[in-house]
Amino acid sequence: MPIFSYFSDEIPVKTSGELDIVDVTGLVRGCVRKMGIKEGTAHLFVAGQTVGLTTIEYEPGAVSDLRNALNRLAPDGLDYEHNARWGDGNGRSHIRAALVGPDLTVPVRGGEMLLGTWQQIVLVEMDLRDRERKIHLSVVGTRENLEGSR
Amino acid sequence: MPIFSYFSDEIPVKTSGELDIVDVTGLVRGCVRKMGIKEGTAHLFVAGQTVGLTTIEYEPGAVSDLRNALNRLAPDGLDYEHNARWGDGNGRSHIRAALVGPDLTVPVRGGEMLLGTWQQIVLVEMDLRDRERKIHLSVVGTRENLEGSR
Amino acid sequence: MPIFSYFSDEIPVKTSGELDIVDVTGLVRGCVRKMGIKEGTAHLFVAGQTVGLTTIEYEPGAVSDLRNALNRLAPDGLDYEHNARWGDGNGRSHIRAALVGPDLTVPVRGGEMLLGTWQQIVLVEMDLRDRERKIHLSVVGTRENLEGSR
Repeated sequence: MPIFSYFSDEIPVKTSGELDIVDVTGLVRGCVRKMGIKEGTAHLFVAGQTVGLTTIEYEPGAVSDLRNALNRLAPDGLDYEHNARWGDGNGRSHIRAALVGPDLTVPVRGGEMLLGTWQQIVLVEMDLRDRERKIHLSVVGTRENLEGSR
Repeated sequence: MPIFSYFSDEIPVKTSGELDIVDVTGLVRGCVRKMGIKEGTAHLFVAGQTVGLTTIEYEPGAVSDLRNALNRLAPDGLDYEHNARWGDGNGRSHIRAALVGPDLTVPVRGGEMLLGTWQQIVLVEMDLRDRERKIHLSVVGTRENLEGSR
Repeated sequence: MPIFSYFSDEIPVKTSGELDIVDVTGLVRGCVRKMGIKEGTAHLFVAGQTVGLTTIEYEPGAVSDLRNALNRLAPDGLDYEHNARWGDGNGRSHIRAALVGPDLTVPVRGGEMLLGTWQQIVLVEMDLRDRERKIHLSVVGTRENLEGSR
């Protein structure tokens, strides 16, 4: 029976403003690699109600298309009750974040996060200004390679 | 090496009708706290095809904005094939639920679920009437604080 | 204290083209059952940037309604920057996949995945042609029934 391990870490991510979409794949990959888990899962979470996590091919075209899609989901020009109640301007940010979601879980295989060749993990800043975000990483699994035991 | 533990629980949630959005943060937080896991992850799941889970700032404005956004995703007045085939009226409920999703995983740190200050976990009722829902909670992690070992 | 186990598997899924929505519940259920985990969680992940996982009632009406909803999220006829940059046609596929998401976690109870009666797990092909996809399954939990210990 393989021994089960658990590690956690925090990864700070600085964003530059509304709909800044940051490729965090390399940062997360480095953390997971250091933990030495060979097989298991890596759970990522962003605390906050105006930020989200998903995966996409990180090239400027697709990233720009994602911004446009978030604008269709919760358009800039709508009247938001959140704004009316709080004299706030980020009603759209809350809705976009609730629909994208704050969590993502990725398999770990052979000591590495398993992703598609052009599939990157992105943090999507939905708030109206630059923010200091943090990804909370929780990795569970075994330190042994299970290839043979499958 | 910390000892690994697993606990599960079921949390009943009564909803009052279509697009009732229920803040379940306190209920889930209480369950997680009782389990005594210090570091790990809490997985939440709702069984059913017309209900979902996400996070949002639970204030009446943002909650109302989320209802409107779900209405844009799958509007009330569209012709749904699900309705045509089954003489049913909740075609929109199925689509909204498939897009919001039934699962959410939140980190546990220092014995508590880690969320943003104004980030609440909500169960979104998409069906057309009041329902008795259940959140299936699965918590994995260690009973020791890992602060020092990171 | 129950003994903690971890198993992984890969499930190949052949898709027939754009917006082929495949019910994979039976395949995943069979894999989970064979692993012998009684209580825990089953994590599913699809690697790739034009494919996603969610749950829905798998009947032709709701499935067709989901296709239409994905078309509203990222319509066929829009100008996508991804297409302009790469002489590609699947800009919409990337956006739909980023919004549906590549991961899903389902509780395991009594040795079986816990789902609603009419809630099925579906793999949604967003690319423009048939593809050979793979679901990466990671199951963690105990081999003992915890019913009594809750």
